[in-house]
Amino acid sequence: MNPADHADFGLLSPVSAGTAASRLTSDYQFIQAMLDVELEWTRVLAGAGRVPADAVPAVEQASRADLYDAAGLAERAQGGGNPVIPLLADLRAETKKHNPAAASAIHQGATSQDILDSAMMLMARRTLAGIVTDLKSAAAALARQAEEHRGTITVARTLTQHSLPSTFGLKAANWLSGVAQAGVRLEQVAGELPLQWGGAAGTMAALTELANRPANPAATTAAESEGSAGTAAGSAAPNNDGGALALAARLAERLGLADPVAPWQTNRLPVTALAAALADVLAAAGKVANDVLLLSRPELGEVSEPAAEGRGGSSAMPQKQNPVLSVLIRSAALAGPGHLAQIQAAAAGAIDERPDGSWHVEWQALRQLLRLAGGAAAKLAELAEGLVVQPESMRRNLAITGELVVSERIMATVAPLLDGGSPGAGKSKVQSLVNQSLANQGTLAQLLRDAVPTDELSDAALAELLDPAGYIGQSSELIDRITSHYAEWSHS
Amino acid sequence: MNPADHADFGLLSPVSAGTAASRLTSDYQFIQAMLDVELEWTRVLAGAGRVPADAVPAVEQASRADLYDAAGLAERAQGGGNPVIPLLADLRAETKKHNPAAASAIHQGATSQDILDSAMMLMARRTLAGIVTDLKSAAAALARQAEEHRGTITVARTLTQHSLPSTFGLKAANWLSGVAQAGVRLEQVAGELPLQWGGAAGTMAALTELANRPANPAATTAAESEGSAGTAAGSAAPNNDGGALALAARLAERLGLADPVAPWQTNRLPVTALAAALADVLAAAGKVANDVLLLSRPELGEVSEPAAEGRGGSSAMPQKQNPVLSVLIRSAALAGPGHLAQIQAAAAGAIDERPDGSWHVEWQALRQLLRLAGGAAAKLAELAEGLVVQPESMRRNLAITGELVVSERIMATVAPLLDGGSPGAGKSKVQSLVNQSLANQGTLAQLLRDAVPTDELSDAALAELLDPAGYIGQSSELIDRITSHYAEWSHS
Amino acid sequence: MNPADHADFGLLSPVSAGTAASRLTSDYQFIQAMLDVELEWTRVLAGAGRVPADAVPAVEQASRADLYDAAGLAERAQGGGNPVIPLLADLRAETKKHNPAAASAIHQGATSQDILDSAMMLMARRTLAGIVTDLKSAAAALARQAEEHRGTITVARTLTQHSLPSTFGLKAANWLSGVAQAGVRLEQVAGELPLQWGGAAGTMAALTELANRPANPAATTAAESEGSAGTAAGSAAPNNDGGALALAARLAERLGLADPVAPWQTNRLPVTALAAALADVLAAAGKVANDVLLLSRPELGEVSEPAAEGRGGSSAMPQKQNPVLSVLIRSAALAGPGHLAQIQAAAAGAIDERPDGSWHVEWQALRQLLRLAGGAAAKLAELAEGLVVQPESMRRNLAITGELVVSERIMATVAPLLDGGSPGAGKSKVQSLVNQSLANQGTLAQLLRDAVPTDELSDAALAELLDPAGYIGQSSELIDRITSHYAEWSHS
Amino acid sequence: MNPADHADFGLLSPVSAGTAASRLTSDYQFIQAMLDVELEWTRVLAGAGRVPADAVPAVEQASRADLYDAAGLAERAQGGGNPVIPLLADLRAETKKHNPAAASAIHQGATSQDILDSAMMLMARRTLAGIVTDLKSAAAALARQAEEHRGTITVARTLTQHSLPSTFGLKAANWLSGVAQAGVRLEQVAGELPLQWGGAAGTMAALTELANRPANPAATTAAESEGSAGTAAGSAAPNNDGGALALAARLAERLGLADPVAPWQTNRLPVTALAAALADVLAAAGKVANDVLLLSRPELGEVSEPAAEGRGGSSAMPQKQNPVLSVLIRSAALAGPGHLAQIQAAAAGAIDERPDGSWHVEWQALRQLLRLAGGAAAKLAELAEGLVVQPESMRRNLAITGELVVSERIMATVAPLLDGGSPGAGKSKVQSLVNQSLANQGTLAQLLRDAVPTDELSDAALAELLDPAGYIGQSSELIDRITSHYAEWSHS
Repeated sequence: MNPADHADFGLLSPVSAGTAASRLTSDYQFIQAMLDVELEWTRVLAGAGRVPADAVPAVEQASRADLYDAAGLAERAQGGGNPVIPLLADLRAETKKHNPAAASAIHQGATSQDILDSAMMLMARRTLAGIVTDLKSAAAALARQAEEHRGTITVARTLTQHSLPSTFGLKAANWLSGVAQAGVRLEQVAGELPLQWGGAAGTMAALTELANRPANPAATTAAESEGSAGTAAGSAAPNNDGGALALAARLAERLGLADPVAPWQTNRLPVTALAAALADVLAAAGKVANDVLLLSRPELGEVSEPAAEGRGGSSAMPQKQNPVLSVLIRSAALAGPGHLAQIQAAAAGAIDERPDGSWHVEWQALRQLLRLAGGAAAKLAELAEGLVVQPESMRRNLAITGELVVSERIMATVAPLLDGGSPGAGKSKVQSLVNQSLANQGTLAQLLRDAVPTDELSDAALAELLDPAGYIGQSSELIDRITSHYAEWSHS
Repeated sequence: MNPADHADFGLLSPVSAGTAASRLTSDYQFIQAMLDVELEWTRVLAGAGRVPADAVPAVEQASRADLYDAAGLAERAQGGGNPVIPLLADLRAETKKHNPAAASAIHQGATSQDILDSAMMLMARRTLAGIVTDLKSAAAALARQAEEHRGTITVARTLTQHSLPSTFGLKAANWLSGVAQAGVRLEQVAGELPLQWGGAAGTMAALTELANRPANPAATTAAESEGSAGTAAGSAAPNNDGGALALAARLAERLGLADPVAPWQTNRLPVTALAAALADVLAAAGKVANDVLLLSRPELGEVSEPAAEGRGGSSAMPQKQNPVLSVLIRSAALAGPGHLAQIQAAAAGAIDERPDGSWHVEWQALRQLLRLAGGAAAKLAELAEGLVVQPESMRRNLAITGELVVSERIMATVAPLLDGGSPGAGKSKVQSLVNQSLANQGTLAQLLRDAVPTDELSDAALAELLDPAGYIGQSSELIDRITSHYAEWSHS
Repeated sequence: MNPADHADFGLLSPVSAGTAASRLTSDYQFIQAMLDVELEWTRVLAGAGRVPADAVPAVEQASRADLYDAAGLAERAQGGGNPVIPLLADLRAETKKHNPAAASAIHQGATSQDILDSAMMLMARRTLAGIVTDLKSAAAALARQAEEHRGTITVARTLTQHSLPSTFGLKAANWLSGVAQAGVRLEQVAGELPLQWGGAAGTMAALTELANRPANPAATTAAESEGSAGTAAGSAAPNNDGGALALAARLAERLGLADPVAPWQTNRLPVTALAAALADVLAAAGKVANDVLLLSRPELGEVSEPAAEGRGGSSAMPQKQNPVLSVLIRSAALAGPGHLAQIQAAAAGAIDERPDGSWHVEWQALRQLLRLAGGAAAKLAELAEGLVVQPESMRRNLAITGELVVSERIMATVAPLLDGGSPGAGKSKVQSLVNQSLANQGTLAQLLRDAVPTDELSDAALAELLDPAGYIGQSSELIDRITSHYAEWSHS
Repeated sequence: MNPADHADFGLLSPVSAGTAASRLTSDYQFIQAMLDVELEWTRVLAGAGRVPADAVPAVEQASRADLYDAAGLAERAQGGGNPVIPLLADLRAETKKHNPAAASAIHQGATSQDILDSAMMLMARRTLAGIVTDLKSAAAALARQAEEHRGTITVARTLTQHSLPSTFGLKAANWLSGVAQAGVRLEQVAGELPLQWGGAAGTMAALTELANRPANPAATTAAESEGSAGTAAGSAAPNNDGGALALAARLAERLGLADPVAPWQTNRLPVTALAAALADVLAAAGKVANDVLLLSRPELGEVSEPAAEGRGGSSAMPQKQNPVLSVLIRSAALAGPGHLAQIQAAAAGAIDERPDGSWHVEWQALRQLLRLAGGAAAKLAELAEGLVVQPESMRRNLAITGELVVSERIMATVAPLLDGGSPGAGKSKVQSLVNQSLANQGTLAQLLRDAVPTDELSDAALAELLDPAGYIGQSSELIDRITSHYAEWSHS
């Protein structure tokens, strides 16, 4: 079989094709992650005198993903339902080439699910690092936009219609708020990704026997030599804390994963937490994309995407410039809920000590979420950094509604002047003036001027009331609150 | 229209029908939550001298949900797309009956979304309290089961088949682990539910004007009289902190909601966080139900649900006793992912300063999740407390696999004795003995006895090796880790 | 308990509140549907001489939903996990009031699932009728819009940007195409909704015994009197076709449901087909709403929703008119996928001869889909019939892109004139002219005029080439194809 | 970039890895499908005299997927948001190598969406053929099982508990019913997959111009020579039916796709119909897998999966044989609803004449559904053909409930004999006897014998009543109905 015959290189996922997240979640990277777990475990066992120290170099040499055939492993994975089983066979065979005895040192006390779940967490951790970095870049860029456009008046839209004046700075700050919230949570989840280490039934039975066996006096040399003196014991004798749980804790530390309270073979909340955090990244990025897609329509023209060679053009329609970054981000955001539903359903379907299918459905869904979030975050960073803002268009669009955009203010401020002794009566009069204005029977300014005596409301006061820039409430304070709240995080 | 003509009383949702969560999320309770937000806001404004203090008693009298017609409000909600608009009209009319001037003190500076979102958070908070309590009860009961059955040997099952011995205590501890993780997270989310307070466009513009206006000298009397001296100002002058943001913070405090960094009108991560936490509760409860449904099958008979008058019987098949609690919990768990997907999609679809549809889709989905999680938690507590465990059936089922259930141990321990100088050769011999045993050509004990000389493995040592109770690894330690980790929480 | 304490009157579902679909899927209507199934079955049995004919009048008198307490039934449904069990108890008690012996004639040979599934199909059939009618109205209105605006030039937008000229008529025809496709399919599914009738285990065992028993000589009188001579036997002897399957077929006929090949207790494709058809209605309606929401933005102004008293206004912002119909339709469309996922997951989770939870999750999801589709269809009909179209705004928006909107045509037609002997060279020249025009260095007309000699392209020919109205391809033919394809259906 | 760096070879999708469906949906196959659409379109245009006939051979030579770099195309797809744009550039460059003038004959009048959507339908059609074949094999095998086990008594289970006797034949027939229903629908949908051909804006504008141009006299030679005389015109003059719509119809015919009423660029019901049909295949297969997973548990042992070298074993636990086929089928079934939700949400999110993201989200979801359904169908066929049935275990399990399994019959038949003149009183007595039996105070047979005089119920009659094999209702008739209903289809 030609491996490419079955392969997905990203052709149908342009949002993530070619990105770091796509590379870090490739089948080869997953194979590498599985190998890394096996290798580190061999090191832990060697360090604890549980397997011969000289097994380690052979396993190291065999622990390179490019030695293995991903497509072949994929096909053979059907035999046992997961890819660990064929990989382990190949890893042992490869290790034997270097040291025939070393093969039996591999995977001691472990089960397929230990390797697969831990490798998935490892792959996630490696991928999340870049996603968080991109989110911080995006957040920092949005903070700059917010600052720069603190005074750029624009119209706020609710239910698609013009509501009140606002600033583009506040819009950018609100984008920042969503992106940073999602980023903070993702970083938190990234730091809590747990090791899975329970053995065949979650009892650590084989590992317990292994840990209780007399130590192998030749065991620790290799472990010492691989430069992790802090975790590998300095003597041949097993540590006092050489029990099964302590060995697992040492593995977690080496892999950079959290040491959980207990194995979580059928308690999948670590997986749902990761998926939910990724889906939130997609939602926050999607909100920005939705707005950019709208605001960059020709009829609005308030923003445009950063131009890049080869992006967004159409050879057939040479005038056209498509907001491709946002289109792709939005496509990722739309895909998120379905993958999340799969993972949530898998968690809800768990049974026994290893589930009969709901475990398996997590894998591809989780990879897709990592890829989608990674692609979206990368594109969001580029978009946020290069977004071109058109204050003039914002003014033009605001002018469509004109003075009516502050009708709320007029209703609150001028209506009482028109009560004529009957509280509330002024509101009807203002509504009537607004209707006249909507019917093109005069500007609201003129109509108000005619209706309210100048001694109750001077010309200057009326003009001030009708100025959109004077009715933006806490816009500036909210920008400050949001940007300062996330400043440290986005620059860490 | 007869209100009942359109009503859903829970007939198609038996898992939550009649539960506290169902009551606390009824339309009337949601009306009450909206009224509570309006009333507290009036109090805050009165306390700050922004509206007349004597408006408060009238609003108080009008703020009882039973004064309003839920079905009529529902129908009228179509006019503006949300129920706040008609409720506000009715609330003002009702308030006028008590104090004609008070009506205009209501809803000052607020917008529909402020009321609806805050009321939703308030309803959630009220409902979550009971859910968390039920989860703590369930956790405590599961901890007792774990303790009691620390030594109850059972078989662990992976991919539906017998894998290794374990204990029922560990199974219960694992259930506890999932339920408590979900509960801890839910409690955390419950404490972070934020107030929404941004005004028509998220700028707090109207509120800013209101806060900047000279104070009403008669404003604070009522506020003082309603017994919240800590938050209501003691004098007619507005507080130094009487600005828009400070007033909102005061409202948050009065409602028991968190004061957010900024309004979150189109940044819906507070909603997705709540939904994800509820879905996790459903998943954790679902895992328990899945296991109980399996284990209470007649062929397994390892557990049975607590009996209750009128539950689980069948008049047509008098011998039948259905595990109804678990069936209902599982039905709720299966419904979770779809609702979560709706809410996640809504967040990803947000646009503008108030979304044109994706806001609206959250409401019913969130209520359903609250109801489902509430129903599931209540039933889970009952199930966990009353679960009847049959150690004898566990022994009987374990005997189906017999000594083969420790084959992993034999493979690790006895196989090397059969290597005959050729490392690894012993594994094939053990596999061969296992196959003979599976083919009914002898028990594994006999076959091993024949294969291994007694001087290498005494009769006693062999018997010990084959005892399932001796091969349960860290079961007891894991029970301790889990129960101690959540002990404080579940009893708080 | 006050029934309203737990009730959902539609407050959080404004799209369906107060609609026919909401009424037809209320708990009381579902109770009525269950009663109808029980009653018709009693009639069938009486007609076949299997139960006394004089039982029928008593059951008839007891088969009115308003005699029962929906909230109480909902709560009691927890006992057995479904509402049939308590309803049956109450129905028997109520029947006894009229004829003590008649109670035992009810539900003979049936099981809860028979009643619930059949009642669900019956409720669906009743609700679908109105939905299909609304879809036909919408389709007919859209066909009128398509016809009327066959010549109304507008801009087609792809990836949010202006692409080519089109007509509003074609846009309306495309809306029609989606709505009618969904409607045709829904009507088809409505005609195939099957009866469920399998007895306790899907074998019809009890019914078989009943059918084989000697007939009751007094059985048919009442059945004859209730006016269904066609199906009730005319003599005391059971029909030749009085076997279990024939009795079930007769029930299907009486209920207006299809007679399935076999009971489908754990084969839920009839349910997924219904759900998918409803979700498609939501998608088709959602597409229209998405477009209307966009096109009615102030910056576009190409269409506006029909005005109605009390709809879309904002008391605080008197100038604002929200496109509420579309907002509500869109909210329904966004909710569809989650409900569909629930039902699909339920079907995929079926097990045994009656599933332990996945059956139960269908009920509420199916009701919600019926309500959402019903609400969306009703609002779509209103929207389609009253949509206000602004051809002048379409021209204005088209003018933003100006002659560049036909750049595809220029590229195909004029570029070859500029090849200068080098095929393809002309394309670069046109792109260059387009870029100059985009950079405001002249209109494309001027630039082209300067570039192409008049003897190769006359002024008149150039003007014709640049006229958007001359570049609408098959718009008119496509309108014809679509409207004629669905004309008969939409007027049936 | 090493292409494998980003590739997914199926490692995380064991259900489909290495299957025909996986191969037929690979990136290279999708490139081939896009090339096929471009090539056939060039042929159609040449046949109609719209492009030079000698362009065809050059395009043919360039239309081999292995000439292109899938990973590179994937990465470049980000520029325009879809893979057609870079592929078209490469295809033109490749074509130029053979005939410099031919490049401009490609893609005339088409747009990216035409190619991508049509290629997706083409890829689907090619993949569906094999899926339908596998479903027919599975159906035929299940029909054989149904026939063979028509008399194999087993227990029917509802809500996990024993309800009544049934036959394994009926269980197999019910599996067949679901699988065949899904297969019939899938085959129907496969026959309706439509061509997409609308040009840049769905108006066919460029194509209309092309069709109206004077024909190229040298155009048809190549087309004639490629052997499709039926569709290519026999003369240089364009056909009378050479208009844009007729050309599109010809393309549809050549590709084996349906000619739709109109382009469906933003009317995605053809896509949702395909997705729903695939999800139904997954649900139907999932139901079988759920049952097999249960029935092959050691405690039930009623069926076992066909053994195969290298499948289901565990090296660590040599006694273990996992039901891997069913595990994988179930994993696919659990993944279905999430993908379906994505596609449904995409359809509901369509806007404009080409959507800004919701189009893009369909692609990967649709491929995944094809792969999952293909993998599940292949494994289902193998499972159905090789399923090992254990009638003896079924008898053993039925014996757990014993005579109580016909308690429904006793309730209907014997209870009236115990009424003692008081109708209904017998039921309580039977319930009491059942309770005594459940409490091990005698078998139901003994207790009944003691309770009912032999003159009312002879020993023989009682024994007959208590025989499970005598209480299977219409099992045999239902098997006949189901198998005969689908016999023709499954053998076609």
